[in-house]
Amino acid sequence: MYAISLGDDGAELRPLEPWRAEEFLAHIDRGREYIGQFIALPDAVTDLESSRAYLRSYAEKAAADAGGIHGIWRDGELVGGVLLRTMDLGQGTAEAGCWLEPSAVGRGLVTRAARVLIDWAVRERGVHRVEWQVAAANQASIAVARRLGMRKDGVLRESYVYRGKRHDIEIWSVLAAEWRAAGQGS
Amino acid sequence: MYAISLGDDGAELRPLEPWRAEEFLAHIDRGREYIGQFIALPDAVTDLESSRAYLRSYAEKAAADAGGIHGIWRDGELVGGVLLRTMDLGQGTAEAGCWLEPSAVGRGLVTRAARVLIDWAVRERGVHRVEWQVAAANQASIAVARRLGMRKDGVLRESYVYRGKRHDIEIWSVLAAEWRAAGQGS
Amino acid sequence: MYAISLGDDGAELRPLEPWRAEEFLAHIDRGREYIGQFIALPDAVTDLESSRAYLRSYAEKAAADAGGIHGIWRDGELVGGVLLRTMDLGQGTAEAGCWLEPSAVGRGLVTRAARVLIDWAVRERGVHRVEWQVAAANQASIAVARRLGMRKDGVLRESYVYRGKRHDIEIWSVLAAEWRAAGQGS
Amino acid sequence: MYAISLGDDGAELRPLEPWRAEEFLAHIDRGREYIGQFIALPDAVTDLESSRAYLRSYAEKAAADAGGIHGIWRDGELVGGVLLRTMDLGQGTAEAGCWLEPSAVGRGLVTRAARVLIDWAVRERGVHRVEWQVAAANQASIAVARRLGMRKDGVLRESYVYRGKRHDIEIWSVLAAEWRAAGQGS
Amino acid sequence: MYAISLGDDGAELRPLEPWRAEEFLAHIDRGREYIGQFIALPDAVTDLESSRAYLRSYAEKAAADAGGIHGIWRDGELVGGVLLRTMDLGQGTAEAGCWLEPSAVGRGLVTRAARVLIDWAVRERGVHRVEWQVAAANQASIAVARRLGMRKDGVLRESYVYRGKRHDIEIWSVLAAEWRAAGQGS
Amino acid sequence: MYAISLGDDGAELRPLEPWRAEEFLAHIDRGREYIGQFIALPDAVTDLESSRAYLRSYAEKAAADAGGIHGIWRDGELVGGVLLRTMDLGQGTAEAGCWLEPSAVGRGLVTRAARVLIDWAVRERGVHRVEWQVAAANQASIAVARRLGMRKDGVLRESYVYRGKRHDIEIWSVLAAEWRAAGQGS
Repeated sequence: MYAISLGDDGAELRPLEPWRAEEFLAHIDRGREYIGQFIALPDAVTDLESSRAYLRSYAEKAAADAGGIHGIWRDGELVGGVLLRTMDLGQGTAEAGCWLEPSAVGRGLVTRAARVLIDWAVRERGVHRVEWQVAAANQASIAVARRLGMRKDGVLRESYVYRGKRHDIEIWSVLAAEWRAAGQGS
Repeated sequence: MYAISLGDDGAELRPLEPWRAEEFLAHIDRGREYIGQFIALPDAVTDLESSRAYLRSYAEKAAADAGGIHGIWRDGELVGGVLLRTMDLGQGTAEAGCWLEPSAVGRGLVTRAARVLIDWAVRERGVHRVEWQVAAANQASIAVARRLGMRKDGVLRESYVYRGKRHDIEIWSVLAAEWRAAGQGS
Repeated sequence: MYAISLGDDGAELRPLEPWRAEEFLAHIDRGREYIGQFIALPDAVTDLESSRAYLRSYAEKAAADAGGIHGIWRDGELVGGVLLRTMDLGQGTAEAGCWLEPSAVGRGLVTRAARVLIDWAVRERGVHRVEWQVAAANQASIAVARRLGMRKDGVLRESYVYRGKRHDIEIWSVLAAEWRAAGQGS
Repeated sequence: MYAISLGDDGAELRPLEPWRAEEFLAHIDRGREYIGQFIALPDAVTDLESSRAYLRSYAEKAAADAGGIHGIWRDGELVGGVLLRTMDLGQGTAEAGCWLEPSAVGRGLVTRAARVLIDWAVRERGVHRVEWQVAAANQASIAVARRLGMRKDGVLRESYVYRGKRHDIEIWSVLAAEWRAAGQGS
Repeated sequence: MYAISLGDDGAELRPLEPWRAEEFLAHIDRGREYIGQFIALPDAVTDLESSRAYLRSYAEKAAADAGGIHGIWRDGELVGGVLLRTMDLGQGTAEAGCWLEPSAVGRGLVTRAARVLIDWAVRERGVHRVEWQVAAANQASIAVARRLGMRKDGVLRESYVYRGKRHDIEIWSVLAAEWRAAGQGS
Repeated sequence: MYAISLGDDGAELRPLEPWRAEEFLAHIDRGREYIGQFIALPDAVTDLESSRAYLRSYAEKAAADAGGIHGIWRDGELVGGVLLRTMDLGQGTAEAGCWLEPSAVGRGLVTRAARVLIDWAVRERGVHRVEWQVAAANQASIAVARRLGMRKDGVLRESYVYRGKRHDIEIWSVLAAEWRAAGQGS
């Protein structure tokens, strides 16, 4: 039922709930190759059952107040999303992430969506530090981190095996004070 | 983050998520006596822990695509809500319900909110029959059922013990075809 | 080990325990088409594993004091049964049901068995209201409800999908006072 | 509902189900000291909650077809019982046991009840060997084993700590062929 | 990482942890026929998954302080082992066992390993009685029990079905005082 | 039973199993203030029950092949330990950590113990990257990381709340190739 406008082009952010499993699978199928360059999401969503299981795992995170997933719709079609892979309110930390199918690239959709989500985490939920983990070669995602005002905390050398290759993982972050000072999300 | 306007008076419908437990408890505390006349909700929400457990049980229902709970905000304050106690998409059935604190009575808030929720169930999720179970003495709730275009299916004689007294329970319902014909929710 | 005589014709009521799974399956196989006209029991009991799972689920209900299942034997053969699908002693309510294979129809076996079971629920366990849910077209089961002294509480319109068709469900009930007054079970 | 006559004196064997927890506790309270001389049953049944938990554990054994508990009633009062602590149908083995409150001692009630239970295990369920484990000093229980036609397989030296003292445990058993030959249970 | 020397021939005792599943399976495969003469271990370890499940079940016993499994290595190869199938510290009892592949027979490996394990149980953990259950025809295992200073407590007649045949099971045991007096393990 | 010598001073590494809960608690009690300067271990081990729960959680990690905990004994007394908080063999990564009570500081015990553990992870289990997370102010632990040949990957700014204060967390790591090249652990 719910939706948040992401701007004048009609893009919207909506809860990505388990009953969307079929729509989510179709979206992942459209972007499987592109999305799967650096992240394992497409490997986790390969049929209707795994799609539902993936969304259900995030619904359970939300029920435990420990994360969440939201989709980006453009012209009535699900084209990508943003998520909180983890949220630890006792520690005041969260890790955000994103994905996008290729047809929707280049419009700033992910940055706009991540701004809404991070702003909610910082201002409504009191999160102190939002982290962004990204393969060092994933320039598009690193560009989003920069646009969100994040700084690079370090590089976890050879820490991630994906599709048989070992990757460096960069950790970027923004602190609540930095977020507010930059006027992000407002 | 999400909200749906319920009309020109600024009332809004929002997901009632587990992290709202404190706000939910304060609201129930304000309406404990009034809400508790006919329904056991206040008995299930007596402190922060039970408030969180109650909302979490509904978050888990939503994760299983089997129900959900939504709050009504007026002037920035949570004053009531609507819920799907059960939703069985295999059978195409759902049971809806509502509650309201006394300060918000008389403005049609619950009817407006229930219309949004039932309309979503019927039009987006394909629910065929929405049921409304209500104590025979609960005139306010029966009036909502009528305004929603529901018909009385029967009376479960002496089927419900609440606060030491046995109550008849009326079952009201609206079928998808009736909902669409009446133009409810549009 | 246990058995209760249901009358002079040698019919007996016995606990229908998980170790009877093979016998139960054979019985359902004999009556699959007839029993399956209105109730889904045969769809839940299709092989030895599902038969055992079905009986085990009722053994677990009995362990939780929340229901139970009992078989009717005639000439040493399991031919049908009665059950308490639910029993809620806090509310003082229970829902009873029955089934029979065609060879045993017309002898009043189900009515006799249901009398024993309901009488136990009302007199030994203090149940206040026993309910009987039945598809409106299931005349045989409705006749049992009448013979048990039940009254029709209402009709849940189009509430039950079975084998691709939508059915009205009638709710019949008898209250403890009515049961005692009618001298049922004695 | 169910009962089996144990003889002309009106004694009966009945399923000892979880809803009997209050009656079971009262019975154990009457025999707490006497029953607790050699077996730990009274230590496991000290209040209503533990009484219900104990009976529920046996209901779950029965649901898994791995044991069961039955009470002996005399003059309408629960005075003792027999049980299958374990039953392993794959191995064809079971371990039986018994207890009795002092007021009912000396009438052969336990022997009669155990005959019904073992006979069911051997003849209806195909158990090949029924075992009886008993503290070496528990002469009353050893006498029951003898009356049931059991033979002593051995003595587990100092194998059981009970109330701070170490006991030898005797193992007695009867095999199906012996049971049938002796005409026990018939 | 850990190892205990079993003597001058280089044999060692090591924890047999779940990550050894592949090595354990290869070992069982080499001794499948010989080991399987009297014990069911080879039937429980038939592929990598069941091998891991078997070792994991013992890791969980160790986590619950209720048992454990240890392998014997000779010339760098896993050739057998000893285990505590159960350990009940409240009762001060444990049941030990062993197995060996045929290439390693005749060197006293199992006796040496069992001495280490039983000594740990008796001296470090305070176990009062260690039991050894063995098929009456398993002369090799009975010889180990004798060498460990155990005495025969009795014979459970026809208590064990294995590969379609019924076996007598002998129970041997050693008490802590006997163990210390015999200077076993030192 | 098991122990590994850590050098000529008699120090030993042993599995820190749940049955050591009492000894572990006494050790933590001796070092509670010192150990608790930067890590939360003492807050998790406050009585016998929590001590057992803590060790059991690591026994379960070991059962799942996903971590482990080992104690350092000196002069027969448990004085500290090393652990793998996580181990992900699919990714080839692990996170190591350590603690020490003040009486044992300054002898290189933790470095020696960590070498054994990391060497096992790298050489026996094929771990590619071992990580060390440490509060930026914890100079003693950072010195261990340096002695283990680790390099600093970055600083997670203000990522850790401990005792009401927010800390930067440094991430250090060593890769398998670096470990082998440095001849660590040999």
